[in-house]
Amino acid sequence: MKIRAIKQKQKALQKEIQRPMVGTHVFGNLYGVDSALLKDLAATKEIIKKASELGNLHIIDIMERQFNVINSPDLGGVSVIALLVESHIAVHTWPESNYVTVDIYSCGEESRPETTFDYIVSKFNPADVEKFETKR
Amino acid sequence: MKIRAIKQKQKALQKEIQRPMVGTHVFGNLYGVDSALLKDLAATKEIIKKASELGNLHIIDIMERQFNVINSPDLGGVSVIALLVESHIAVHTWPESNYVTVDIYSCGEESRPETTFDYIVSKFNPADVEKFETKR
Repeated sequence: MKIRAIKQKQKALQKEIQRPMVGTHVFGNLYGVDSALLKDLAATKEIIKKASELGNLHIIDIMERQFNVINSPDLGGVSVIALLVESHIAVHTWPESNYVTVDIYSCGEESRPETTFDYIVSKFNPADVEKFETKR
Repeated sequence: MKIRAIKQKQKALQKEIQRPMVGTHVFGNLYGVDSALLKDLAATKEIIKKASELGNLHIIDIMERQFNVINSPDLGGVSVIALLVESHIAVHTWPESNYVTVDIYSCGEESRPETTFDYIVSKFNPADVEKFETKR
């Protein structure tokens, strides 16, 4: 996966700008995951809840959606997004491609987003995974 | 901002793994934003709704939270996350640091996540912005 930095037109700065880095964003792409799990909304939610606990992340609210296969009554992928005290977790699945994306963005020094990410990966058990981390 | 790729232990692959890239994730960090706007939950939601329309992104549901300043009754930052048909938008603000993070992850060939990102930036009117894009 290539990450491209895009130059924005910047204003002339009158003074030095504060550049905080309040948290850590761990994100990645999971390949070769069993498609049955990727249609399982309840299981995906449970994985995220347990992963949050393990990473000392605190869920305020969860949104979820099960999609259908296009032009079919069959179950398709799911999206589960947790709003955290510390920021957010987002998981999207594409069972037709055996593919999952995972984002964990957490602020706070006592959270462990890597632990959360690694637990999610362990449960989806992909054939391959790309993982990235950025302070922001 | 530095983005670090982390090597994961990979299983031996018996066959070539499908590596789909279903969408575009545009994300960035906005510095030097007026703190009053960063406490304004209603305004932030409106920005996200309008930005979604402009980028041909379709909101299924929105989660929101206004935080308090620690040990104070004063309003602090906000988090607004939209679950999209196309994936998600997440905006987190830190008025005490004049700082905002923005994530737009969209799949589908007819969406314009860059347009959505640029509109959000224009409304927050930061002194400086970092912008990144990755296909995933």
